[in-house]
Amino acid sequence: MAVQTVASTTDSAASPVDLGPAAALSCRECGHRVPLGPVFACEECFGPLEIAYDFSAHDAEELRKRIEAGPANIWRYAPLLPVPADVATKPNLNPGWTKLVRADNLARELGVTGGLYVKDDSGNPTHSFKDRVVAQALEAARAFGFTTLSCSSTGNLAGAVGAAAARAGFRSCVFIPHDLEQGKVVMAAVYGGELVGIEGNYDDVNRFCSELIGDPAGEGWGFVNVNLRPYYAEGSKTLAYEICEQLGWRLPDQIVVPIASGSQLTKIDKGLQELIGLGLVEDRPYKIFGAQAEGCSPVSTAYKAGHDVVRPQKPNTIAKSLAIGNPADGPYVLDIARRTGGAVEDVTDEQVVDAIKLLARTEGIFAETAGGVTVGVTKKLIENGVLDPSLTTVVLNTGDGLKTLDAVAGTGLTATIRPTLDSFREAGLV
Amino acid sequence: MAVQTVASTTDSAASPVDLGPAAALSCRECGHRVPLGPVFACEECFGPLEIAYDFSAHDAEELRKRIEAGPANIWRYAPLLPVPADVATKPNLNPGWTKLVRADNLARELGVTGGLYVKDDSGNPTHSFKDRVVAQALEAARAFGFTTLSCSSTGNLAGAVGAAAARAGFRSCVFIPHDLEQGKVVMAAVYGGELVGIEGNYDDVNRFCSELIGDPAGEGWGFVNVNLRPYYAEGSKTLAYEICEQLGWRLPDQIVVPIASGSQLTKIDKGLQELIGLGLVEDRPYKIFGAQAEGCSPVSTAYKAGHDVVRPQKPNTIAKSLAIGNPADGPYVLDIARRTGGAVEDVTDEQVVDAIKLLARTEGIFAETAGGVTVGVTKKLIENGVLDPSLTTVVLNTGDGLKTLDAVAGTGLTATIRPTLDSFREAGLV
Repeated sequence: MAVQTVASTTDSAASPVDLGPAAALSCRECGHRVPLGPVFACEECFGPLEIAYDFSAHDAEELRKRIEAGPANIWRYAPLLPVPADVATKPNLNPGWTKLVRADNLARELGVTGGLYVKDDSGNPTHSFKDRVVAQALEAARAFGFTTLSCSSTGNLAGAVGAAAARAGFRSCVFIPHDLEQGKVVMAAVYGGELVGIEGNYDDVNRFCSELIGDPAGEGWGFVNVNLRPYYAEGSKTLAYEICEQLGWRLPDQIVVPIASGSQLTKIDKGLQELIGLGLVEDRPYKIFGAQAEGCSPVSTAYKAGHDVVRPQKPNTIAKSLAIGNPADGPYVLDIARRTGGAVEDVTDEQVVDAIKLLARTEGIFAETAGGVTVGVTKKLIENGVLDPSLTTVVLNTGDGLKTLDAVAGTGLTATIRPTLDSFREAGLV
Repeated sequence: MAVQTVASTTDSAASPVDLGPAAALSCRECGHRVPLGPVFACEECFGPLEIAYDFSAHDAEELRKRIEAGPANIWRYAPLLPVPADVATKPNLNPGWTKLVRADNLARELGVTGGLYVKDDSGNPTHSFKDRVVAQALEAARAFGFTTLSCSSTGNLAGAVGAAAARAGFRSCVFIPHDLEQGKVVMAAVYGGELVGIEGNYDDVNRFCSELIGDPAGEGWGFVNVNLRPYYAEGSKTLAYEICEQLGWRLPDQIVVPIASGSQLTKIDKGLQELIGLGLVEDRPYKIFGAQAEGCSPVSTAYKAGHDVVRPQKPNTIAKSLAIGNPADGPYVLDIARRTGGAVEDVTDEQVVDAIKLLARTEGIFAETAGGVTVGVTKKLIENGVLDPSLTTVVLNTGDGLKTLDAVAGTGLTATIRPTLDSFREAGLV
């Protein structure tokens, strides 16, 4: 199937694809609808396309039972995702259904009395939430007849795409800046796909990928975060579904979400709204808080200034998985934070490191820098009186500390001793 | 409670501890029984003590239903473990219930037609099977009134103990060789416990820990792999339980297990025997295969030579988590391999690396070097006609590739290009 960056209504003659309840693509700006296809921008207004669903047939009680009887991964929610009904039988990494950890020790340190939980997505197959979104893009790629799975990446996504493609029998070709740290290169290269270094920065990599999509050389290629983006992004809804189900089919009062492009936060809101609409949870107020690192805080800056638009920044933070200076979904994030009564806040790199250590020390969870951002922001929001410690609060950890070891490289031995009891006693550890 | 290295029957006056179905400690050599306590060697013959259970009250169908209704972690098997019945309510990392991955791509490459599965323990909280065993030791530590959790370690165990102690509110003090790689130190130190470098090698660390247990300075300390070892070791039974339940309450025909001390392999056999004895699975033959790296292959060497005793070796292999030159359970492993019709085999470091890449390329699973050992040995056993490819086979991956990145450090970019379509075409990737 030919790849188009802009949807055309003449597409309506294309053979229908089976992506379950996904009915069409709909423009988030003007509402213009087009058939499902590998397109991501509206032909009318160039706004972002997203999935429109047909959920009309569901009885809430029946759906809840069906979900609970489903597999211990995201496919328990297949009736709510843009995937065919038999998705669980196809080879994929089966991500999701990660632990919602009741964090009583952390709650004590932060003064939270209403119940504090960490949604720990480091438990995914390649140890970040990216497995959730890539799994959706993979099914779209199957539906559209693509044979190569691709992306631009600076880290987590490269590994998630490489692993997913390997298991599903797709060719993969991932584009990264050529001067990425060796460790990150290894994590992406081990799955055996093509890993191409681009002489340039991440912006150059993205620009190149957009060119490739429009070129015959990109024929048959599914770029998970470009031409498959509408499908890909829906994967973040599963975080919302899991949190509510794990709370006993209940909305959290407050949820703290990291912001990179902002897509994850908007899809978590979409997921919560769907659960309300379907009658799976009681409709009560919830607040969504966005978390950024100070060194890349375009959304937080706009939020604090009361702006509706987000001014791009040049990122400079250790939270590299969140370092998107021009977040596409920034305005939607601002809207959600304000509508739900949440907020957007940022923390310094030093606070990120402190928060990583705090979470590890209290709950035994070793988070990626992005997790340090959400925990650090939660702490700051409580101290500032913005987040209510008497309410049920969920904090997202979207990745694994093993992937950003450098951030806590200063951590080390508390003592060095000779192998004798005398030496041990001298060290004052008893 | 005072710590003893050798059990004394005069202990019988001690207050009874609630460790669920665990009834006593029993010597694996002479059968001598002593009450549950923090002891690990028989006072009669110095043989290793292990847990003796009282499972008499179970109805198979009722037990199976109870397990299936339990939590998605090892505590679903609490009725079969040395833990109190309410263990799931206590703060711990809730490890286990990791994926049993149907590995059809790998099966095709290896010529396995009877069904090949990878039990992927990289999905545990600190990304190795050690979380399973430490979780048992933690409950024993609670029962015996210890306040410090400790161990000697060269890697995975240090992190598992640090994380478990942090969440459970224990002090931790972990001993490692002082010159361990910085990455491994960070992974253990981040949880905030005491991390003590010992000037010496791993043998020196172990010797020091044994001294400390006998000294007043070690009062109140639970060394998970020393004085709590009988409890700790039982955690590996959960691998056997999960594999059978995930296969639909069925024994695998063949299972390939890595050998470090050999404890894991013996406990997997114990777990399978228990399931048979309890009527949870049909009693049919199964074969257990042991896997070592050539650079530390004392058990494999003894197996091939037809010996009953294992001669110690000086380890020299990249599979450091298996590098125990004098494996305590070696003779038991030989016995099980021979009794079940299995075998013990070893592979070179080069074959380990190739197997890591093979598993990643075919199934999207990035294994630690120990996983490279089991996959490599499986390949070799099939090629040698020892492992029957027409039978259902389960291969263990006990840890995560992110922990042994150095092993595949040679993996890298397949091409470097300028950010232009011309440069891309020249690279020949289309």
